[in-house]
Amino acid sequence: MRNRRCAVDKRLRQLIRGDKRVIAQTITTVENATDPKVLEQIFPHTGKAYHIGITGPPGAGKSTLVNVLCQHLLTDGKKIGIIAVDPTSPFSGGALLGDRVRMTDLSLHKDVYIRSMGSRGSLGGLAQKTKDVALVLDAAGMDYVFIETIGVGQVELDIAQVCDTTVVVLVPESGDSIQAMKAGLLEIADILVVNKGDREGSDRFMLELKFAFELREQVTGWDFPILKTIATKPEGIPELGAAIAAHRSYLEGCGMLEKARKIKLKRRIHELIENRISSHLREHMIGEHELDTMLDKMYRRKLNPFRVAARIADRIIRPQ
Amino acid sequence: MRNRRCAVDKRLRQLIRGDKRVIAQTITTVENATDPKVLEQIFPHTGKAYHIGITGPPGAGKSTLVNVLCQHLLTDGKKIGIIAVDPTSPFSGGALLGDRVRMTDLSLHKDVYIRSMGSRGSLGGLAQKTKDVALVLDAAGMDYVFIETIGVGQVELDIAQVCDTTVVVLVPESGDSIQAMKAGLLEIADILVVNKGDREGSDRFMLELKFAFELREQVTGWDFPILKTIATKPEGIPELGAAIAAHRSYLEGCGMLEKARKIKLKRRIHELIENRISSHLREHMIGEHELDTMLDKMYRRKLNPFRVAARIADRIIRPQ
Repeated sequence: MRNRRCAVDKRLRQLIRGDKRVIAQTITTVENATDPKVLEQIFPHTGKAYHIGITGPPGAGKSTLVNVLCQHLLTDGKKIGIIAVDPTSPFSGGALLGDRVRMTDLSLHKDVYIRSMGSRGSLGGLAQKTKDVALVLDAAGMDYVFIETIGVGQVELDIAQVCDTTVVVLVPESGDSIQAMKAGLLEIADILVVNKGDREGSDRFMLELKFAFELREQVTGWDFPILKTIATKPEGIPELGAAIAAHRSYLEGCGMLEKARKIKLKRRIHELIENRISSHLREHMIGEHELDTMLDKMYRRKLNPFRVAARIADRIIRPQ
Repeated sequence: MRNRRCAVDKRLRQLIRGDKRVIAQTITTVENATDPKVLEQIFPHTGKAYHIGITGPPGAGKSTLVNVLCQHLLTDGKKIGIIAVDPTSPFSGGALLGDRVRMTDLSLHKDVYIRSMGSRGSLGGLAQKTKDVALVLDAAGMDYVFIETIGVGQVELDIAQVCDTTVVVLVPESGDSIQAMKAGLLEIADILVVNKGDREGSDRFMLELKFAFELREQVTGWDFPILKTIATKPEGIPELGAAIAAHRSYLEGCGMLEKARKIKLKRRIHELIENRISSHLREHMIGEHELDTMLDKMYRRKLNPFRVAARIADRIIRPQ
């Protein structure tokens, strides 16, 4: 027992020092939920990393942007973790080989740790797993944790909720922007980037976006920046870095960072409780045979699933 | 009391007759969850509609395809419900005006009911709400319920689970197809459609897909069709209709339809129980003040959210 404890402490120390092998192993443990204690152990060592979400439609050049932005930040001696949830990201092996090779360079840097999250299979818990992995990278001493997601669905909005600053990346094509707006992406954006800014129509697109956001600036107090970048050159990257720093100062200055992080913690608590109850449910709900009989009746519309669910739930909930 | 019951019965009869005004009102009630009894009341009248999912990347022409396919099916005197969850769908007001006008024509047909689901705000429960709306349309006597989703995220995979036949629509551009595969879309496809089949490279793309799916055919026993359509002309629509009918026959013939629907019911039961427990949780979890104090401690890493969540959950769960 004591030996085991020593081993745990040792691994934790290695993690906190940023040992890449231990980071990888810890993330795997967390992803597979093989040892629920791990998150408990690392939590006290978290809270220092600044979380930056990079999201936007496929093909907006998010990974390239993350890549050059990281190279920019590394010159300040910062440690960076990158979580790629976007299935089209070269970080997660989704894009062209040329891209992937370029990204691998970054992953070899001693101060960078890159992890891609499979969106296949584990879809249900993807956002939660991403949050867990972010905790591991936070504990491992990363100054910045980037979370790159393909901005379309529920998962992205969930993940945006763990980020301190969310950068939405668009390209000068109105189709993408309409889609992004519809998907609620622009509502979660703290910084808007029009990448591939050398494409035709980019100035007009920037103007349209500025117009659309005039009202919002006044409401929140944050002087919402809309930046133009060309990640492949790269151009506009120091400005993006400065905008992220400015947003952070803004949040810290008005006490919003603490407030927002507490709200996130609260949401997390709710999720954790629901998870625990769900697994209790799976174990204790009802016998398989009893359920099959009931399903047969429901299929023939002789039994009402809404009523059945209420009955089972009431059996599980402790009366208050 | 008796009067209210009479009114409920009357409305239910109107719904079952397919009264469009009552369908609309019932859907609104269901969407807002203002009366949880409604779903209980309509459930016994469901189970007759055949659910067809139409999903694929944005710009694949899903809505146009649904439009012409419905016109094809209407000639058989069928009643059709359409649920548009795709935020870029003209059904839900997302596409160009020209499209929207064309779609409105269909919505004026006496045997067609179209409902669009907002993906904004209600994202969390979108898949579940969609299932509820499908139940309403089923009870309202629709022979077919089409559910059109933009195929990228969790919501689509969830929704595919309520469909008897899922049609994945692609266009002859490899980028889209790679993305679709990554998103797990092709795993849920029962029928694959290459729309805009007059575009360059469509034959090659069809061949690639056929090659990729050769293995799958042998595993499931269903002779997985890959069809070419040009929805705007329209071309290939009777063939698509026939493929859907063939898939239905296949499912019915081997008993799979019943089996799959029971699995869906089982999943639904789990969801319903979890919902009920979640709302119980929200009401009885913990006092706001107590939680705020705890959040403050957690923010300062003096208290562990994983342990807190476990404690609260155990307070709620009835010991078995």
